[in-house]
Amino acid sequence: MYAIDRIESALNRALARATQSPTEAGAKNECPPKFAAALNYSVFPGGGRFRPRLCLAVAAACGEDHPECTDAAAVAIELMHCASLVHDDLPCFDNASSRRGKPSVHRAHGERLAVLSGDALIVLAFQEVARAGLVAPQRLPALLAIVAESVGAPHGIAAGQAWECESTVSLAAYQQAKTGALFVASTMAGAAAAGHDAKPWRALGMALGEAYQVADDLHDAVDTEEELGKPVGRDAALGRPSAAIDLGITGAVQRLNLLLANAVDSIPECAGAIPLRAVIAAEAGRLMPKRLRLRAA
Amino acid sequence: MYAIDRIESALNRALARATQSPTEAGAKNECPPKFAAALNYSVFPGGGRFRPRLCLAVAAACGEDHPECTDAAAVAIELMHCASLVHDDLPCFDNASSRRGKPSVHRAHGERLAVLSGDALIVLAFQEVARAGLVAPQRLPALLAIVAESVGAPHGIAAGQAWECESTVSLAAYQQAKTGALFVASTMAGAAAAGHDAKPWRALGMALGEAYQVADDLHDAVDTEEELGKPVGRDAALGRPSAAIDLGITGAVQRLNLLLANAVDSIPECAGAIPLRAVIAAEAGRLMPKRLRLRAA
Repeated sequence: MYAIDRIESALNRALARATQSPTEAGAKNECPPKFAAALNYSVFPGGGRFRPRLCLAVAAACGEDHPECTDAAAVAIELMHCASLVHDDLPCFDNASSRRGKPSVHRAHGERLAVLSGDALIVLAFQEVARAGLVAPQRLPALLAIVAESVGAPHGIAAGQAWECESTVSLAAYQQAKTGALFVASTMAGAAAAGHDAKPWRALGMALGEAYQVADDLHDAVDTEEELGKPVGRDAALGRPSAAIDLGITGAVQRLNLLLANAVDSIPECAGAIPLRAVIAAEAGRLMPKRLRLRAA
Repeated sequence: MYAIDRIESALNRALARATQSPTEAGAKNECPPKFAAALNYSVFPGGGRFRPRLCLAVAAACGEDHPECTDAAAVAIELMHCASLVHDDLPCFDNASSRRGKPSVHRAHGERLAVLSGDALIVLAFQEVARAGLVAPQRLPALLAIVAESVGAPHGIAAGQAWECESTVSLAAYQQAKTGALFVASTMAGAAAAGHDAKPWRALGMALGEAYQVADDLHDAVDTEEELGKPVGRDAALGRPSAAIDLGITGAVQRLNLLLANAVDSIPECAGAIPLRAVIAAEAGRLMPKRLRLRAA
């Protein structure tokens, strides 16, 4: 099965458990139907599913022996990503009207269900981690720690978003927490799900996270709203830090290429290192905005 | 140590880890200072800490052998409760101006940090569960499942709050999810933290959760804002379901007393059943609004 199909199937199963499962005690209470709709809307259709693909690729390179464990880790990370998008789009943050080519969750389902969907997706992500523990109990502590650290305080996504509320911002801490943390979790959780030591995989996640941030800045600067599926030019409009603004388009393209080369170089020795390098290189090529690919080549 | 001091100490340690800890890799990034302040403001000073006290009492009755494991479970549950209060108070929900006798989190720290604090407290709760797993790894899967089920979809707090967005509401499902679920988690996690089977403890949590809901309705109906530390008369003003409105004050008092008697009767056989009955009875007495205690006697 292609990675993307495998991820969509696993996400579908997770959402079905959250929105349809009966209670253990046999009680009749179901998930509130509008809530179930908002949860599904928050996850499907997806974006590039870059993080769970990365998680799967690392697990494969480590010789995964429990695919259900990898699936659970990859799903947990994608659900955390979806939760962060739903909350980031809220009126009090970016007040984004669209995301992934359709109205944002709060525009389509209301602000209350958007807040609650984000909350429930965070919880569901941890329930997925718990499922990984059913398959491989001895891997549960490491997976739980990796996923949690990437999302909470002091250094996870929520802390990254919180830097936007400070008057003095550490740009490195901001970007590492807001974007880098979940990429680090993707590579480390992929290794941990395959029973490997996760630490050597931190550098790959760091490099790809930084590359993704630069690519995101480039997309915001050069894409159309139609291409991107969400409003563009937001960094300049909101005065947010942006590599495309700080380094210029050419400088940012050079920076992106350097980071991608560093990422490939950072892959630890493992059984599947060579195919993983090819996968990372191919994924990396997709990060560059289409209209810049000729320039980057 | 008294239970309340034990809980405050454990909560203080958890918040310190979230707001002050260095990164594993030795990076310099700290928790954003305003975020750290909002997180602490969300948890301290507390309300009655009823849920973690309940968790500790059940663990003691089960003959707890790993107090750190109980502490972690109790803290996880209280953090989930705090997170739900912060998000429930948001402008898009109750738009509450005060909570626990001081301005609500979004009034004091802004809406963005209130959303992020709720998110990070949910994550921190799971990190506490992970800490329980460090002490007693074989208890981690049960604790993780109990805590997660009580907070997410389809039957946890978030789902309970989501029922408020439906046009047709199952009142039983609404109250069980919004209030009962975390009480069930408190009793079950207390048992699981002590290495006992958690299922027999569900009934006690159910009864206490329902009792707490009725007590909450009574407080809203008869207390002053000064006594309650938050606005009163909100159920009538917002047309929310309320036992005090449906059954009248006298009927709701009778219902509360019946539920509390049921709770005491439901305590499973265990080494500390007799002292636990006394603790539950004493805690239960505190649920009744002061001005109704004579009537209830």
